[in-house]
Amino acid sequence: MCRFLFYEGSPITLSDLLFAPNHSLIKQSFQSEERLEPLNGDGFGLSWYVPTIRPEPGLFRSISPAWSNSNLAKLAEITRSTCVLAHVRAASEGLAVYEGNCHPFVQGHLSFMHNGDVAQFRPNRRKLLAELSDASFESLGGNTDSEYLFAVFLDHYRALGDGVAAADRLARALVATLDEVLRAVASFGSQEPSYLNIVVADGRHAAACRVTTDRPQYAESLYVHTGSTYRVVDGVCRMLPATGAHGAILVASERLSSDPGWTEVPPNHLVLVKTDRKVAIEPYTLPCALTDVRQNPA
Amino acid sequence: MCRFLFYEGSPITLSDLLFAPNHSLIKQSFQSEERLEPLNGDGFGLSWYVPTIRPEPGLFRSISPAWSNSNLAKLAEITRSTCVLAHVRAASEGLAVYEGNCHPFVQGHLSFMHNGDVAQFRPNRRKLLAELSDASFESLGGNTDSEYLFAVFLDHYRALGDGVAAADRLARALVATLDEVLRAVASFGSQEPSYLNIVVADGRHAAACRVTTDRPQYAESLYVHTGSTYRVVDGVCRMLPATGAHGAILVASERLSSDPGWTEVPPNHLVLVKTDRKVAIEPYTLPCALTDVRQNPA
Amino acid sequence: MCRFLFYEGSPITLSDLLFAPNHSLIKQSFQSEERLEPLNGDGFGLSWYVPTIRPEPGLFRSISPAWSNSNLAKLAEITRSTCVLAHVRAASEGLAVYEGNCHPFVQGHLSFMHNGDVAQFRPNRRKLLAELSDASFESLGGNTDSEYLFAVFLDHYRALGDGVAAADRLARALVATLDEVLRAVASFGSQEPSYLNIVVADGRHAAACRVTTDRPQYAESLYVHTGSTYRVVDGVCRMLPATGAHGAILVASERLSSDPGWTEVPPNHLVLVKTDRKVAIEPYTLPCALTDVRQNPA
Amino acid sequence: MCRFLFYEGSPITLSDLLFAPNHSLIKQSFQSEERLEPLNGDGFGLSWYVPTIRPEPGLFRSISPAWSNSNLAKLAEITRSTCVLAHVRAASEGLAVYEGNCHPFVQGHLSFMHNGDVAQFRPNRRKLLAELSDASFESLGGNTDSEYLFAVFLDHYRALGDGVAAADRLARALVATLDEVLRAVASFGSQEPSYLNIVVADGRHAAACRVTTDRPQYAESLYVHTGSTYRVVDGVCRMLPATGAHGAILVASERLSSDPGWTEVPPNHLVLVKTDRKVAIEPYTLPCALTDVRQNPA
Repeated sequence: MCRFLFYEGSPITLSDLLFAPNHSLIKQSFQSEERLEPLNGDGFGLSWYVPTIRPEPGLFRSISPAWSNSNLAKLAEITRSTCVLAHVRAASEGLAVYEGNCHPFVQGHLSFMHNGDVAQFRPNRRKLLAELSDASFESLGGNTDSEYLFAVFLDHYRALGDGVAAADRLARALVATLDEVLRAVASFGSQEPSYLNIVVADGRHAAACRVTTDRPQYAESLYVHTGSTYRVVDGVCRMLPATGAHGAILVASERLSSDPGWTEVPPNHLVLVKTDRKVAIEPYTLPCALTDVRQNPA
Repeated sequence: MCRFLFYEGSPITLSDLLFAPNHSLIKQSFQSEERLEPLNGDGFGLSWYVPTIRPEPGLFRSISPAWSNSNLAKLAEITRSTCVLAHVRAASEGLAVYEGNCHPFVQGHLSFMHNGDVAQFRPNRRKLLAELSDASFESLGGNTDSEYLFAVFLDHYRALGDGVAAADRLARALVATLDEVLRAVASFGSQEPSYLNIVVADGRHAAACRVTTDRPQYAESLYVHTGSTYRVVDGVCRMLPATGAHGAILVASERLSSDPGWTEVPPNHLVLVKTDRKVAIEPYTLPCALTDVRQNPA
Repeated sequence: MCRFLFYEGSPITLSDLLFAPNHSLIKQSFQSEERLEPLNGDGFGLSWYVPTIRPEPGLFRSISPAWSNSNLAKLAEITRSTCVLAHVRAASEGLAVYEGNCHPFVQGHLSFMHNGDVAQFRPNRRKLLAELSDASFESLGGNTDSEYLFAVFLDHYRALGDGVAAADRLARALVATLDEVLRAVASFGSQEPSYLNIVVADGRHAAACRVTTDRPQYAESLYVHTGSTYRVVDGVCRMLPATGAHGAILVASERLSSDPGWTEVPPNHLVLVKTDRKVAIEPYTLPCALTDVRQNPA
Repeated sequence: MCRFLFYEGSPITLSDLLFAPNHSLIKQSFQSEERLEPLNGDGFGLSWYVPTIRPEPGLFRSISPAWSNSNLAKLAEITRSTCVLAHVRAASEGLAVYEGNCHPFVQGHLSFMHNGDVAQFRPNRRKLLAELSDASFESLGGNTDSEYLFAVFLDHYRALGDGVAAADRLARALVATLDEVLRAVASFGSQEPSYLNIVVADGRHAAACRVTTDRPQYAESLYVHTGSTYRVVDGVCRMLPATGAHGAILVASERLSSDPGWTEVPPNHLVLVKTDRKVAIEPYTLPCALTDVRQNPA
């Protein structure tokens, strides 16, 4: 399990996003509040877009904890971006802690991060990987279920092609990924639930989800916050009220501060960031095969 | 603040010492129980003696958390030692997380580790360092109060010379260090308390202490466990009853398991490991200047 | 390409093996002499056996250069072993520098390291991996041709089973691996040569090879040195003459010193370390398919 | 010894500066050409200014070699700056390889880097540090002669105060630093030469020097390149001819390509980057005490 944060909006200095809020992602790296285990110290990662320089994002990942990485702190003070994905990792038992397993994963102009687990991934990994295209198979740099999810996503994204509008393409590829992976998991016959909180972005649009095959109340936490401009004053995030297209959107595992603007994303819903930063929250329907498999893990 | 563990006894495989106990030092690196903040994730260190190879210990330090360092796990499985100092660090605010600041500190055949704080160290650091001998000044590889303590110790240890029996030399140098540092702190006029839990060892003897100028009940926790042989069975440490000289001694910030043999070291006491692994617990008297300065920090 | 060193013999302090010789492996990490490019700074690895503790070896790998890793230097001074594999890496272009790609690779009691290249590995990787057993596929922690070679080896080693004497099992599995991989490469139709200098060991026996499909004179360098006891005096390795079973064997990419006892392993030969540390050098015959493919790469 | 590169000019993508040239600083990290030893693999560092965000620079330092650090490569592709100091390190024998010893050193809005050695630094370190102000003493995060030079510089820079124009202040503080340090070294009575190639910058102005007390021909190499705009085409750096104030300046240990615009800085000269990016090359006169001490080290 892990914690993550997504931002899109007018250019923001990364330290205002990552360090300044009272309950910042950096603080969540050692003191998260909505997981049983507060620690997310198995490395971190950050991708950020600067469209005036290039469409592909920057990427900074490390296995050292986010809270003590001085390069991260210095980089964040001097870097501005319009689209940021940031992730602090709590490695699943037995999975290696190395940079290649740190989120976000980046391919071309796409960034992807995940909080959760694909049930029964490890015993079925080879079978699942066999379904990937050669390109997606070769893109794997690590061995996590999260990166596998991204590989499935890439196959659907490529299949949709440039003909589909960018925001729709992300959304449809994400739904297709959820459907495919959850059906595959169901076919293994296990009752173990999956947890799929995901953000995927192209620098201008994004698709996120809060999905689980567990009872809905056990979904990993996810919040959204929108407005016109994001500000942090004395650790409290504020959003100036939205007045139009050039707003700001935050999607986060935990609320960054006690600002009342944070909205919980309902379980099994998508958060779609469309052209001009319009945000839609839409239900996601689990594949039929799974509708009876809602139970709490031991 | 930090957590640490000292062992002396018959050769032990390091993984039995560091990983196997239910409440092992590795577990304390992310879930310590006797500190307000459970996390000690700012690196770790390990020195271990193999007298049949050389009198100087091995040293392995890293800024990565102890719980995810695969080199530590593999090294611990294949290494046996008769004397081990192990430490997991929670860096004081503002102090750099790099290997040179990780405990234990080693000079020649001596190893030293600390859990606590020297009050008012940073604003008075230059003044304090000015009192060191050239040799001790040059031995500094980092900038912590802990390494300064070791430098003071080295000066007293050298001054005592080889003429003093090894166990006494460690004990007397440690007491002289406590006296000197606490007097210096008192001279700064601050009411802020110091916390000085220390272990220093030469591979065959050791001196440890649990000292504070705070109210005694606020001393950092410290425990001792002695017997003839240390065993871990299903995560529970057991000591076979002591039958003579070749016993085993554990000194630890927290009890490694619920085994009843663990004894709390009283505040302001020394733990002395003498020749033939005899253990004495003796009171330490704070310098006069400090006896009125016992109050709880805000 | 890379440089490596294998030792088997009476217990040796690792620093005498890795640091003390004039042309030690550590020196080869920045100044190797028998490669066009002298630098092998993309990490290192070390596995070492201590049969009195456990049959599985210790493993220490890092992406930092061997020459500046203080943990390696300290560990080497205090550790003795009867069987050591050590490797300094020069990453092939485009392959990630992370610990999971550092040699040696270890599975159970087996250690494996490689110096060279499997021709046309990357474009054919998925096809090659598809031939592995599930167990060998799951054992992969990185994405190099070297680790793939080990996975093929493991399949042959398992297929041979415990019924085959340990030394023979290593030797036969290595030959089967060479045959299988070289036939697969030949089937790709490329004229690009492969370079396969390998050591695989179980802690008591070993099989090594110096193999190429290039012209023999372009094989990666490999040397062997045997005797009764290995000594380093002032940087020069010496072997006391062999007097029986408990001798010492070194297999190294480059001679560790100017001692005249070093013998070049002829191209396309195996070096087999059998029971009681007897050493045999035997020819390896390339699969028929390859005998015409001997040409120098551009 | 080390290699470094300074840039000031219109915003440049860091990868064009650090990676693209045929003989880039990254290439110099493993294959420098104007030192006896081509390797500068003991870490690297980078400070870069983005005045539209803040006056203090970003800072990224690591002990991993520059050539294999994927975070550096990704950061460089997405970051633009008007003023950059970059450094690849070859640690002097016996000095620790850790981030705190990597250049550049940064204090407030100032960045500092050094290539060379202060003669007799280590045996006289304590004496030299005793001359520093408290502020400069406390600013030390490592233990190199290079960081000591910066500390001396900071004292002179502070003493000059805001009343001195920014470019002059850098230049005068640098000259005062050279004078003070070389006089101190002369007072030790050693004939060992010092090598002081330095760049110090405030984000808009800079002062650099190529100074030695050795015979001039043994000075560490240093080059300068100026013009209106810096371009890299197929690995060759080009400068469009200067047409006015908003030009570009490169100061580098080695020429980044065979472009004829590179000029060697004469030994014992300063390179001053003044307001509006005007560049002056001026002689530096060694303190009298040193004029007879010009000899080649053994």
